[in-house]
Amino acid sequence: MTSLGAYAKKHRVAVIGSGNWGTTIAKVVAENTVEHADLFESDVQMWVFEEQVTIPKGSSSYDPGSELSTKPQPLTHLINTLRENVKYLPGVPLPKNIHANPSIESTVKDATILIFNLPHQFIAKSCEGIKGKVLPFARGVSCIKGVEVSDQGIELFSESIGRKLGIYCGALSGANIASEVALEKWSETTVAYDPPSMDSRHPSPKGSPRQSIDINVSDIDSTALDRGEKSKPQLTPLPSEYPPLSHENMKKLFHRPYFHVRLVDDVAGVSLGGALKNVVALAAGWVDGLGWGDNAKAAVMRVGIMEEVKFGKMFFSESVKTQTFTEESCGVADMITSCSGGRNFRCAKLSVVKKKPIEEVEREELNGQKLQGTSTAHEVNAFLKRKGREAEFPLFTAVHRILIGEKRPEDIPDLLESKTS
Amino acid sequence: MTSLGAYAKKHRVAVIGSGNWGTTIAKVVAENTVEHADLFESDVQMWVFEEQVTIPKGSSSYDPGSELSTKPQPLTHLINTLRENVKYLPGVPLPKNIHANPSIESTVKDATILIFNLPHQFIAKSCEGIKGKVLPFARGVSCIKGVEVSDQGIELFSESIGRKLGIYCGALSGANIASEVALEKWSETTVAYDPPSMDSRHPSPKGSPRQSIDINVSDIDSTALDRGEKSKPQLTPLPSEYPPLSHENMKKLFHRPYFHVRLVDDVAGVSLGGALKNVVALAAGWVDGLGWGDNAKAAVMRVGIMEEVKFGKMFFSESVKTQTFTEESCGVADMITSCSGGRNFRCAKLSVVKKKPIEEVEREELNGQKLQGTSTAHEVNAFLKRKGREAEFPLFTAVHRILIGEKRPEDIPDLLESKTS
Repeated sequence: MTSLGAYAKKHRVAVIGSGNWGTTIAKVVAENTVEHADLFESDVQMWVFEEQVTIPKGSSSYDPGSELSTKPQPLTHLINTLRENVKYLPGVPLPKNIHANPSIESTVKDATILIFNLPHQFIAKSCEGIKGKVLPFARGVSCIKGVEVSDQGIELFSESIGRKLGIYCGALSGANIASEVALEKWSETTVAYDPPSMDSRHPSPKGSPRQSIDINVSDIDSTALDRGEKSKPQLTPLPSEYPPLSHENMKKLFHRPYFHVRLVDDVAGVSLGGALKNVVALAAGWVDGLGWGDNAKAAVMRVGIMEEVKFGKMFFSESVKTQTFTEESCGVADMITSCSGGRNFRCAKLSVVKKKPIEEVEREELNGQKLQGTSTAHEVNAFLKRKGREAEFPLFTAVHRILIGEKRPEDIPDLLESKTS
Repeated sequence: MTSLGAYAKKHRVAVIGSGNWGTTIAKVVAENTVEHADLFESDVQMWVFEEQVTIPKGSSSYDPGSELSTKPQPLTHLINTLRENVKYLPGVPLPKNIHANPSIESTVKDATILIFNLPHQFIAKSCEGIKGKVLPFARGVSCIKGVEVSDQGIELFSESIGRKLGIYCGALSGANIASEVALEKWSETTVAYDPPSMDSRHPSPKGSPRQSIDINVSDIDSTALDRGEKSKPQLTPLPSEYPPLSHENMKKLFHRPYFHVRLVDDVAGVSLGGALKNVVALAAGWVDGLGWGDNAKAAVMRVGIMEEVKFGKMFFSESVKTQTFTEESCGVADMITSCSGGRNFRCAKLSVVKKKPIEEVEREELNGQKLQGTSTAHEVNAFLKRKGREAEFPLFTAVHRILIGEKRPEDIPDLLESKTS
């Protein structure tokens, strides 16, 4: 579909974030910008929140004869010198074309593709820092799992990033444990990308041009609208000097032999799967802790997937597809992984086994980190309560009621019986 | 929907088979025939392949003062006296209304509902023994997992039972480990039941009457036809003295607080899920054995579910629905359970860990029992080869090629890449 060599410019890729998942995704795309030199500039800028880091003595990069190892160094300097993120992804060699950059502004300068991979608490501030400084026709991909719940409703991170920067933002999510992807252990992921088509030279990503050629209602808006929101960012068309960001070309940016990518249109579905599975993983952990076996755990996952679908269709109806949850890595596969050994699963299981409140297990086990499942469960419940829809989501509601001590894990089958069977 | 008390007769239920799953299902339905006395006769006949059994000394039913414990007894006598299947489901108290019966003929006499739960090798002979001796309007439900592959093609057990006895036969399958269901640990299952409607008094099970009121092409035939078969059993309508076997009433026969049932129409889908997941479980075991982690395992399951859907739609096209595989217990949940700890998964994993052929692991681990996944993989492959469709099922084909030593588990990502991504 792509006519090679026909474009005057190449895409420039920037990764915003450099934790273990951010660095891993930077590695993936940097391998691909080299491999697909017809589409992408080789160099990948990666924004690093600068900090002074001392290389641990156990690290393979530790060298007692080098100044790098004997006194604290800026993390960007270590990454660019050692080709390793010694703090957040130790032991994984990084491609030479990744450039750790302490300035977020210079990271995004001239980039046509912005990949967001940050902890939740840094998103707003980071967007603030680059607002008006990104190319107006840049396109984003959010790798951030979770949803933002406020009094106004639920917003996806892809939506809020897109809204804040006035650009289109897709999403990447899947059954991906960062450290395993970094070690090139095989996995799959899902990339959702479906900007409105605004240029006859750049048909819709799937190849079939849409009817309207200059619409300003993005997927962001149609879903936001559903939830009573009004913002309608005006999207700027990608100039025709650049290769189109078709599904085919987006796949070339993310797909590796060890990281299989499937492209879909459903940004909301991809984002929701990554957020809501954490709620389900708590229930899976509880029934496992009760010793109810794999049957019960699989039943929780199945019911959980069905409630994800219902939630998506009810509150993000325009774009959400059942298959995103039932057939893609971001749905069923991520659910399976999270209910097999993720931290939400493990802490919930331990809370039953040790007969302790989950908050206590969280403190003991997570070394100051927080469970996403518990906060998402409460946020989702508050949202459902406001909408008067609690009863239609018996599993999500059961998780909330168990967390607040109103019900016990043993009650799950009863709580689900009337609604799901 | 059921008008209580309006029917002169009640349904009589027989269970054919008394292994651990057969006895467990007999327990489930015997609890329900008592609870729904308006629809069902309380007594449940259970056919037991008679054998002389000595109660093991470790059994809680062992009583040195009783003749039952000191010399071998007919298994039916032990079951009916002790209310326990000491050989195949020890330690689980059985309802008093189960009657173990050594005569298959007398077991099925006057039964309107026949539940088949036998090892594969007994099905043909058992059907032979009762052919012409079941009520012509009896309805069957097969709980037997697997498919029969012969030179003529693939046949479901529900189909072959229906064909042999000239009755309609549905299917029950789900993420159900017999011993866990027997102990009343919560799980879900799927019952597929969709006989052609033949009587205005008895509309189609879902409540919406079909157009034709006396068709003789059952689901069995439409699918068999697809595979070049010709048999068209003439179905006899259920007499109007009996309560209709609606989805609502079938659910009352199987649903328990610890065993949640969902009814669907798709008999082929329900049956195929239970057979094909064993092939996928081998691949899941291999990647787990390679240490590729939960991401890779979840990817195998996801691809496996998608190949099940494709297989069903390609070869059983009239009746198979995607959702049966992606949304029901018999599909996604059974896949998860089988790829978490089933014997196919375990032996495949051990074969990688111990670097031994899977046949050797099978001999060492299974005490003479056989893996279903390996034989199903070969049978399915032979079928696909005949149809010229191997390349369209890269995972099923990969499993076969790895089993015969043509490829290695490490090749799975490559073998899947071109087709699934």
